[in-house]
Amino acid sequence: MQKPSNPQGTRDFGPEVMRKRNIILDIIKVVFKKYAFEPLETPAIENLSMLTGKYGDEGDKLLYKIRSNREIVHEIDEEKAQKINELFPERWIPGESKLGLRYDLTVPFARFVVQHRNEISFPFRRYQIQPVWRADRPQKGRFREFTQCDADCIGSSSLIHEADLIHIYDEVFTKLGLSNAVVKLNHRKFLEAMVDELSLDFPVARFTSTLDKLDKVGKDGVIKELMDAGVEKAKCFQLFELITVSDLNVDMLDQLASSFNSNTLAMDAIEDLRKLVGFLGDSPLTIKLELDLSLARGLDYYTGCIFEAIILDSDIGSVSGGGRYDNLTDIFGLKDVSGVGISFGVDRLYEILETQNLWPDHKSANQSVLICHFDLESQRYGIGVAQKLRQAGISTLVYPDKKRINKQLDFANNKGFTHAIVIGQDEMESAVLTLKNLSSGDQTKQGVEDCISILKS
Amino acid sequence: MQKPSNPQGTRDFGPEVMRKRNIILDIIKVVFKKYAFEPLETPAIENLSMLTGKYGDEGDKLLYKIRSNREIVHEIDEEKAQKINELFPERWIPGESKLGLRYDLTVPFARFVVQHRNEISFPFRRYQIQPVWRADRPQKGRFREFTQCDADCIGSSSLIHEADLIHIYDEVFTKLGLSNAVVKLNHRKFLEAMVDELSLDFPVARFTSTLDKLDKVGKDGVIKELMDAGVEKAKCFQLFELITVSDLNVDMLDQLASSFNSNTLAMDAIEDLRKLVGFLGDSPLTIKLELDLSLARGLDYYTGCIFEAIILDSDIGSVSGGGRYDNLTDIFGLKDVSGVGISFGVDRLYEILETQNLWPDHKSANQSVLICHFDLESQRYGIGVAQKLRQAGISTLVYPDKKRINKQLDFANNKGFTHAIVIGQDEMESAVLTLKNLSSGDQTKQGVEDCISILKS
Repeated sequence: MQKPSNPQGTRDFGPEVMRKRNIILDIIKVVFKKYAFEPLETPAIENLSMLTGKYGDEGDKLLYKIRSNREIVHEIDEEKAQKINELFPERWIPGESKLGLRYDLTVPFARFVVQHRNEISFPFRRYQIQPVWRADRPQKGRFREFTQCDADCIGSSSLIHEADLIHIYDEVFTKLGLSNAVVKLNHRKFLEAMVDELSLDFPVARFTSTLDKLDKVGKDGVIKELMDAGVEKAKCFQLFELITVSDLNVDMLDQLASSFNSNTLAMDAIEDLRKLVGFLGDSPLTIKLELDLSLARGLDYYTGCIFEAIILDSDIGSVSGGGRYDNLTDIFGLKDVSGVGISFGVDRLYEILETQNLWPDHKSANQSVLICHFDLESQRYGIGVAQKLRQAGISTLVYPDKKRINKQLDFANNKGFTHAIVIGQDEMESAVLTLKNLSSGDQTKQGVEDCISILKS
Repeated sequence: MQKPSNPQGTRDFGPEVMRKRNIILDIIKVVFKKYAFEPLETPAIENLSMLTGKYGDEGDKLLYKIRSNREIVHEIDEEKAQKINELFPERWIPGESKLGLRYDLTVPFARFVVQHRNEISFPFRRYQIQPVWRADRPQKGRFREFTQCDADCIGSSSLIHEADLIHIYDEVFTKLGLSNAVVKLNHRKFLEAMVDELSLDFPVARFTSTLDKLDKVGKDGVIKELMDAGVEKAKCFQLFELITVSDLNVDMLDQLASSFNSNTLAMDAIEDLRKLVGFLGDSPLTIKLELDLSLARGLDYYTGCIFEAIILDSDIGSVSGGGRYDNLTDIFGLKDVSGVGISFGVDRLYEILETQNLWPDHKSANQSVLICHFDLESQRYGIGVAQKLRQAGISTLVYPDKKRINKQLDFANNKGFTHAIVIGQDEMESAVLTLKNLSSGDQTKQGVEDCISILKS
C-alpha cells in the first residue's frame, strides 16, 4: 500500500492554517479593493514559450514543464518513439513540453495586458493572488509552490500610484497589527547617478547587485568588492557619503540635490520624489517611510521608485517589494507602457504573525456552535435549533453520531468550536437551552433567540 | 515578437468575470461555513504515484505530468542522455515525470485524511475550492483548467450529513436566485436491488452505466441496450415499473418497500431514507427534492445516497453531484471510513446565471468612486477626499493623469465605477462636492461625510 505523501517543497493547508492565511489574504484583498484595484486570475498553465527567456538563465532552469499523454501521442514520430522505447524501456516517456507552470504573476499579467490591450481602459489597476511554482531546492521557508500577492497599476506614469501604494502598505501593516513596519524607498536614478557622478567604470546592473549585498556583507564587504573591481578607495568613501538613509521630505530632497551636485539623473529622481511628497500630503503614516539610497533589490528591472518593506524585531527579511518599471510589456511587443507594483510575501507575513503570536482573535469574531444531544429525538430537535443559528449566520454542527456527552464536548474542544449547546429532555420540554462557552466554561440558560443575541454580540 | 496567448482550454478571468465568479464562490463558501465545513487546500502538484491508477485508464491518460530540469539533471544517465540528444537534437528533453497536476479534489482529500489521520478529529467536514487540470480535448464548456468546489463529511455514517447537504443545496440555490433547482436523490442499494430482484445477469456497475444513459437515449434506448445484453423484454418492463420518480416522504417509502417485495437491499435503502426524512424534519425546502430511482451517475463509487442537482429551464445538465462512499480512503490504506460529499460545477452555474441574467446587482452593493479633477491642486485635494471614502470602505480612485474631465468620466464609465466626484476650484473653496451617480446621471452637492452616507446607504 502506498504511503500517502505530498511532494517535497509543497504544503497541505489544513483548517487552522487556512483560517490564519485567510486573515492575511482577506486584509490585503480588502485594502487593494479600496484603492480600486481590480481582480485578475490567469491560468496556472502557460505556453512555455511565454515563460522561457523571461526570468534569466537561472529562472529558466526553475521552470516546471508540463506534458500530457495527448501531446506525446500527437507529436511523437513513430520511428523515434520505437528507438526511445528501446533505450528507455517502460518508465521513460520522451516528449517535448509545450506548457509550463506559472513562475510568477508579473509575466502572465504582462501577457494578459498585451493580449487584451484593446479591451482594457488604461490605466489598469489589477490585483492577483495565486500560487506560483519554482523547481527550487526546497529549504526552510522556501517552497516549490507558494502564493504571490501582487498589485500593479499599468498605463500611467503619475507618481500618485506610488503614493497610493505607500498608503496601502500603511493600511495593510496596521490592520495586521504590524505597525512596526518600515517601508524603504529608493529611486533607480539615484543608483545610476552614483555610477555617473563618481564616474565608476561599472554597468549599473553590476553596481546594484554589489550594493544589494550591503545587508549581508556590510559596508566593508561592499567596499572590498568595489575595490577588487578597480574602484579607487577615495571614490568608495565618496559613494558611502551619498548612500544615506533619511525621512522623505522636501528639505531632505534639497540636501540630496546638493550632495549629488545637481547631477541630472539625481535631479530626475528628486523631481519624482517631490511629486510623491506632494501626493502623500500631510496626514501622517502609522508605519515608518524611509528614503534609503542603498536599496537596490538586485533586479535590473525597475526604472523609477523602488520599494521594500521590513518588519522591525523580526529576523525575516523583506515582506514585500516592488517598484516602477517602464518596459514590462516590451517582452510581448507593447512598448512605452509604464507601470508600478508591489508584491506581498504571504508566507513571511504568516511566519511573523505566528512567531509573535499577533493573530487577531478570530474565534471571537467567528462563533461556532456544536449541538450535543442524548438520543435521536434530541438530535432531531437540535437540527431545528441549528437551522435557526445558521439563519443568523452562525457556523453550527449537530454532532452527527451517537456518543456520550463528554465525548461530544471533547470533539467540540478539539475542533475549536467556541460554544456548545446541550439538548436533553428538559431542554426540549422547556425550549430553554444550555449555552456553554467552551473557552471560559461559563454556562447560561436561555431560549434560542437569546442564544443568537449572545453569540452575535 | 511573440504573439501573447494563453494555452488552449485555459482562461484568463478579467475583473468583470472575476467579480461574477466570486459572487458564486462567496455564496457557496458562506453556506459551507455555516454548516461547519472547514477549509482545506492541497498543493496543485501531487506525487504522480498518488494520482495514477485512481481515475481508471481514461483518467490516467488525462493526467498532466510535470518535470523540471533539476529532476532531469539528477536522474538522467549520461550515456543515454547522449543518445537521446542525437535522436532528438535540442528541443526534446527526455526524463521521467515524478509529479503530476491535481486531477480532482477527492483523491488529494483522501491522501490528506490518511496522511494526517492521527491529527484529525473525526468526523471531519472539509470544503475545498481549487483548480484541477485535465488534458482533455478542449470543447465548448469543457476546459483543461477549471475550478472544483467540494464539500465532504468523512468519518461518520449518520444520515444527518445527507440532510445537511440537502439544506446546503436549498440555501445555495436560493441565494443564487435559482429556486427552480431540483435535487434528485437515489440510493445505490435501489440500483443493486433492481439487479437482484429481477435476477438480471448483469454486474451492477454495467447496469448503472446503462441506466445512466436514460437522459440521452430515453426509455426505449435503455430497454434496447438491456435486451441486446440478453435481458428478457418482460423484465425490462418490470424494471421500469420500479424506476419511479416521486417526492421523498414516509408514505412513498412504504410503497417502494412493497413494490420491491421487501427485497433486503431495497429495505436497506429505505431504512436510510427513513432516517434522512427524520433528519430533514418538517420545515419545507425552497427547492424541489425528488426521489429518482433512475439516477445512477455512472460512477461505481457511491455506496449509499446519490445526489444530482439540475436547474429547470436551463439546457445545461447537472450543476452538482455527489453521494456517499464507504471506501474513499481504502486506496491509501485506511479502511472503513465512510464519507459523503457534493461538488458544485462553478462554470455551469456561471453559465446559467449569465444566460438568464440572474446576477445580483453587485454594483449597488459595491459602490466605487472615481475622483476627477482639473489640475494638480484639485488632484491633491482629491487624495484627501479619497482617503476619507476609503476609510469608510468605499473603493476609490483618484484619476491618476492629467486629462480633460470628459475623458476622465469616460474612463469611469468604461471601468464600471458607480459614481464620480468632480473637484475644481469651487469645490476646494466650499468643501461642497459634486457627487454624480453614473448609472442614473443624477448629481447632488454635499460635503464628504454626506457623500459617504449616500454611498453607504
